[in-house]
Amino acid sequence: MKNFTDNKNRAKVRVPGTSANCGPGFDCLGLATTIYNYLDLTLLKSNRIVVESTGEGATNIPRGKRNLTWQAVKKILDVTGRADEFKGAIIRMKNNVPISRGLGSSSTAIVAGLTAANEILGSPLDKNGLLKLATEIEGHPDNVAPAIFGGFTVSVMSSGTVQTFSFMPRIKLKLIVSVPDFELSTRLARKVLPRNVSMTDAIFNVSRASMLIAALVEGREDLLPLAFDDALHQPYRKKLVPGMTEVFEAAKSAGALGAAISGAGSCLIAFTTAKSGLEQKISAAMVDAFKSHGVNSKALILNVDRNGAQIIKNLRRSSK
Amino acid sequence: MKNFTDNKNRAKVRVPGTSANCGPGFDCLGLATTIYNYLDLTLLKSNRIVVESTGEGATNIPRGKRNLTWQAVKKILDVTGRADEFKGAIIRMKNNVPISRGLGSSSTAIVAGLTAANEILGSPLDKNGLLKLATEIEGHPDNVAPAIFGGFTVSVMSSGTVQTFSFMPRIKLKLIVSVPDFELSTRLARKVLPRNVSMTDAIFNVSRASMLIAALVEGREDLLPLAFDDALHQPYRKKLVPGMTEVFEAAKSAGALGAAISGAGSCLIAFTTAKSGLEQKISAAMVDAFKSHGVNSKALILNVDRNGAQIIKNLRRSSK
Repeated sequence: MKNFTDNKNRAKVRVPGTSANCGPGFDCLGLATTIYNYLDLTLLKSNRIVVESTGEGATNIPRGKRNLTWQAVKKILDVTGRADEFKGAIIRMKNNVPISRGLGSSSTAIVAGLTAANEILGSPLDKNGLLKLATEIEGHPDNVAPAIFGGFTVSVMSSGTVQTFSFMPRIKLKLIVSVPDFELSTRLARKVLPRNVSMTDAIFNVSRASMLIAALVEGREDLLPLAFDDALHQPYRKKLVPGMTEVFEAAKSAGALGAAISGAGSCLIAFTTAKSGLEQKISAAMVDAFKSHGVNSKALILNVDRNGAQIIKNLRRSSK
Repeated sequence: MKNFTDNKNRAKVRVPGTSANCGPGFDCLGLATTIYNYLDLTLLKSNRIVVESTGEGATNIPRGKRNLTWQAVKKILDVTGRADEFKGAIIRMKNNVPISRGLGSSSTAIVAGLTAANEILGSPLDKNGLLKLATEIEGHPDNVAPAIFGGFTVSVMSSGTVQTFSFMPRIKLKLIVSVPDFELSTRLARKVLPRNVSMTDAIFNVSRASMLIAALVEGREDLLPLAFDDALHQPYRKKLVPGMTEVFEAAKSAGALGAAISGAGSCLIAFTTAKSGLEQKISAAMVDAFKSHGVNSKALILNVDRNGAQIIKNLRRSSK
C-alpha cells in the first residue's frame, strides 16, 4: 500500500439526475433519468480538499468540509476504516442537473462521492451498502436509490434500514421535464405539508401507487392515465409552483399520460410513450402554460436511465 | 324469443371467495382464493323468487327480493332492458365461503348472480361491465374485482368508475386462512377507523403496497417480508380480533412471509410459498395463538384462484 500514485487513487463516475415521488409514490418512488453529473475524484493522503466545478450551480457549491461529495467520501472512508490513510481529496465536478429544482442534484453529489471512493478503495461495498450510506447522508432514499440502481425504484424504510426494488418499465417512456426559472427549497416544500391527511386521500395514493407499479412492470399503458394522480403532497405544494395545475392539464391535453411535481419541485414532469411522438407538443404546451402564469421555463426531453451510477473509466490499476 | 324452455334460461357458476386489503392495500388490493360458492340460476317469466341454499350461512340468507343474488340478477336485467321478460328466478346456492368473516361471501353472491344472468342473456356484458355493476351493488371493488377476474387485483376508483388490473403472482403462494368462530360485521370494522391518519402512516402504506405489487409481479420473494405490513387499518381493528397481533407473530415465527386481516376480518391470513412446505406448521401456530386468547378457530390452506367466476356448464343452447 506504500506505492500509491495519484492514478491509483483516482476514479471517474457518471450519476443520473432523478425524479422522486412520480405522483402518488410520495417519499418512496423514484426514477433515474438521462441527464448526468460527472465526478473525477482523487483521494489524497494529505488533508487538502480541492473542489472544482463547472456547469449547473458551479458558483454556489460549498468548498471544503461542507462539500456534500466530500462528506460522502469521508463517510465511506470512516465506515471502511480507511480514514487514516486518506485525509483529503480533489473533487472535480461537471454538472448538468439543475440545482434545487427537484431533480436530485444533491443526491448525485452524494452517490458520486460514494461510488468513486468505493471504486478507489477496491469496492468494499455493493450497491445496497452504498444505498445505506447514501440514505443516512440524505435522510431519505427517494433520490439516492434511483441514482444508484437506475430505472424506477420502490423504497421501503423499516427501523432505519432501507430496502429498494429497481426495475425498467416494460413501456418505453419519454419524460418531459419542465424546468422553471426559480429554485424551490425542499425544506420549504416540506413545511407546507400537513401532519395529518384524510383516510380517503391516503387510500387514493395507495391505490394509484399500486396501479402505477403494476402498469409499469407489466407494460400496461392503458392503466397509466389514472396512475400518476396524487392527493398527499401536490395539492399543498401547488401554491409554491405558480400554474402547476394548469401545466399538468396542458400536458395531458397535449397527450401526456400523466404529470407530477418532480420531487419537491420546482420542476414538473410529464410522461408519454416514445412511440406516441408527442414529446415536442407536450413540452411546448407546458412551457406555454407556465408562461401564462408569468413563469419562464425550459423543457428537457429525457428517457429513463437504465444503469444508475457508473464508473466511466477506471484510471486506477487494481491493487488486489 | 318465444320458445324458451327452462334449460335455456338456466346457468351454473362457480365464484371464488376473496380476501381484500392484503395488509397495506387497504380498499384497493384483493385476491381470489380456492374456496368456492356455487349458484344454479334459472330466470323465470313469472315474478316468483325461489331461494334454496345449502352450506355456509344456509339458514340466514334472505329469501325474496332482499336476496343479494336476486338484487344482482335484477340489476343486470334492468341495465340490459330485459326486466319485462324475466321477473323472477330460482336461485340454488351451495356455499363453502364462511359468512361475515372477511372472505367476500356477499361479493360471491353478487358476482354469481351477475355472471349467471349475463350468461343466460347471451353475454351482453364483458368482465369490466360486470365489475361496474358489482361495484355499484357492493359499494367498493376490493372483493368483487378478484371474484370476477381471479388472481391478485389492484383497483382504482375515479369519479364513480372503477379500473382493475389483475395478475397471477410469479411466486407460487400458499394462503393460510385462520377462521375464528365469531363473525365480524364490516360496518363495525369500518366504524373503528379514524377519519384522519398521519402522513407518516399514509406513506408507510404507499411504500408497502408498491413493494408488494412489485414483489408479486416480478416474483421477488426476498422483498415480501416487509411488504405485508400495514399502518392504516389493522392497528385500529386489533381490538375487534382478540389475539390478532400474536397470531401474526406466531405465523411469522413459524416461517410465514407476512400476515394480515382478511378484509374487515374476522379471518386472519398468512402467506408462504408452496415450496417452503411450512403450511401445516404455520396453520398450527395460528390456531394455537388464537386459542391462547380464548378464540377457537379452524385453518384453511388455500391457493390463489387464477380464473375468478366461471360458468361451470352451459345448460342453455345459444340462441344467437
